[in-house]
Amino acid sequence: MTEFIPPSTQYFHLPTPFPMKRGGELLNARLAYETWGELDTLGGNAILILPGMSPSAHAASHPGDPSPGWWEWMLGPGKPIDTDRWFVICVNPLGSCKGSTGPASIDPATGNRYRLDFPELSIEDGADAAAALVRALGIERLACVIGNSMGAMSALALLDRHPGIACNHINICGATRALPFSIAIRSLQREAIRNDPDWQQGQYDDDGRYPENGMRMARKLGVITYRSALEWDGRFGRVRLDGDGRDDDAPFAAEFEVEGYLEAHARRFVHHYDPNSYLYLSRSMDWFDLADGVNGSATHALSRLRGIERALVLGVKTDILFPIQQQEEIAAGLRRAGIETRFLPLPSPQGHDAFLVDAERFAPAVSGFLRTLSSIALSIEKVA
Amino acid sequence: MTEFIPPSTQYFHLPTPFPMKRGGELLNARLAYETWGELDTLGGNAILILPGMSPSAHAASHPGDPSPGWWEWMLGPGKPIDTDRWFVICVNPLGSCKGSTGPASIDPATGNRYRLDFPELSIEDGADAAAALVRALGIERLACVIGNSMGAMSALALLDRHPGIACNHINICGATRALPFSIAIRSLQREAIRNDPDWQQGQYDDDGRYPENGMRMARKLGVITYRSALEWDGRFGRVRLDGDGRDDDAPFAAEFEVEGYLEAHARRFVHHYDPNSYLYLSRSMDWFDLADGVNGSATHALSRLRGIERALVLGVKTDILFPIQQQEEIAAGLRRAGIETRFLPLPSPQGHDAFLVDAERFAPAVSGFLRTLSSIALSIEKVA
Repeated sequence: MTEFIPPSTQYFHLPTPFPMKRGGELLNARLAYETWGELDTLGGNAILILPGMSPSAHAASHPGDPSPGWWEWMLGPGKPIDTDRWFVICVNPLGSCKGSTGPASIDPATGNRYRLDFPELSIEDGADAAAALVRALGIERLACVIGNSMGAMSALALLDRHPGIACNHINICGATRALPFSIAIRSLQREAIRNDPDWQQGQYDDDGRYPENGMRMARKLGVITYRSALEWDGRFGRVRLDGDGRDDDAPFAAEFEVEGYLEAHARRFVHHYDPNSYLYLSRSMDWFDLADGVNGSATHALSRLRGIERALVLGVKTDILFPIQQQEEIAAGLRRAGIETRFLPLPSPQGHDAFLVDAERFAPAVSGFLRTLSSIALSIEKVA
Repeated sequence: MTEFIPPSTQYFHLPTPFPMKRGGELLNARLAYETWGELDTLGGNAILILPGMSPSAHAASHPGDPSPGWWEWMLGPGKPIDTDRWFVICVNPLGSCKGSTGPASIDPATGNRYRLDFPELSIEDGADAAAALVRALGIERLACVIGNSMGAMSALALLDRHPGIACNHINICGATRALPFSIAIRSLQREAIRNDPDWQQGQYDDDGRYPENGMRMARKLGVITYRSALEWDGRFGRVRLDGDGRDDDAPFAAEFEVEGYLEAHARRFVHHYDPNSYLYLSRSMDWFDLADGVNGSATHALSRLRGIERALVLGVKTDILFPIQQQEEIAAGLRRAGIETRFLPLPSPQGHDAFLVDAERFAPAVSGFLRTLSSIALSIEKVA
């Protein structure tokens, strides 16, 4: 894996040992993060972004790194998450390979990469690590925590395990728990990697035997479920690949543009994401259930959240991986907790990935919500 | 592959050479089929069933084979396709491995299995082969042709290429062409098989090196897209496998019931379907486009169909592989051809596979339609 970490990345050393929910602990572990804007003197203008499974902390360009981030249109001066007003933190998830400690990191106990000796990873561990970072930055209370996809699971875990850590919440394409269709998809992605003889029980070599085919399959299946059939009908139809994209000698080789699109996506991913990290984070989503340990449903678990004033829940009607019913359920549960909640089911054609690409719908939704919060942040300031 | 052919199977030797649409020809090829009921003296009571990709011709139990078929509740005396009234033929698709000639058959030119020397296979080839069988059985005109899934594509090709071959048509979970989401899924299934080192460019050994992992992945992805998330929420939820279904020693092994369900499905399939057949038939669906060679759209292609009096188009709202819009399009096109068409979008929770399992909805739809046809068959009889 070619581990490229943007130069604007900062590192937070987690308390050591850092205990893991399902057992075991991490020594000298760290979180990679980036920040934009300035924390005000009272620390009341901080927004935490918890991203999906694969992105780095580089959500947007930055004085330390002008290259565009994965949410460039969302985040920056004058943008929906306005860094002239807010102090924004984006965290690379614990267990990832983009700067935070994960299976590809060196285990201080052995001097070798953890690989499968990395302890079992839960969404809750990532939430606890993010909470530790927030505290270490001197922030008593976040103005808002924003979570996307896996990060929206992490955000719910954070709010559940660290009451009062945030005044407000934006939940984007999230879920309180994994449902069987998504579990089936992720299980198959993991199987593709595990079945690849070059995976070698996690002992692959970055420059030698590496599970390329398994990673390619996993990524393609990911991209298929991140987008939507509707979008692809208009985008690709039945258009054939031109000569350059075809490999006519290989039997059953790609012929359609949609196959070339998947191949290009896979090629960009295979050597830029650690296969073991993929397995650990993927499984952590299957395990996640906010209702674990609570007598009752996810709605009941949500109704116990405390200290949150307002929430915005965004979902996409064409999302097959985190279907819109799951965001509807989150909104209903947050309302049961007495939180003033707005639920927006968006008709974006791009499926689960819409929050990364559909600026037209997501930008006004997020900016509209954050504008209503400014006064809350100010009122905190005044009270103080 | 363990090739089990039911004892009630009959064989039809195709005209030889049998020319293939995309070039090449088959020598001494055959179709496996079964029949139920009696052909009346005027040959006006014949119904042809064209099944999906993987089933055999054994749609229902039979005096020659009392084991239940894949459509047992649909077909038999007094059932929706009433074999006391109709003479019913079910064909195993050309290119399959369940009795009809396919890549696992012996190539008479070499004495070895065809494997990848089997000529390129199109949906239209299967339709032409089925038409030849119908003629050989002495049937001038079918009372009805029924196609499911891939078979619904074949049925449209049959009606298009052999005008007048059927008076009526039931199209179930069909499509006039493959759309990019389905192409992407099938492309990935083929990739799983092709990437398996044991596939060996099609030269695998039934008892030795065999692409088990690739076939397992392909089948699991198939089952995921044949069913629906909605069904699985109610059926599996987040229930864990009990101890027997788990392999706790393997890292990232299955934990959830839905994973065990997929594994059981895959296990039943892997050695009972020929991997090369799978590749050929899968690709034939991607290639299929009724509008090929017609200036204009699929609707235009459908509007040119001749000689059909009535049609019933059934689709399932939770189908993600052949989405309901495709059946709506078929119905619109058939109406444009002047065919009296009934379109029923069914709310079955089981997705694409509903036609195999949702007797409650599919049985009355089919029996209701076929009852209206009896009079047509009788009127043909009277005219003759």
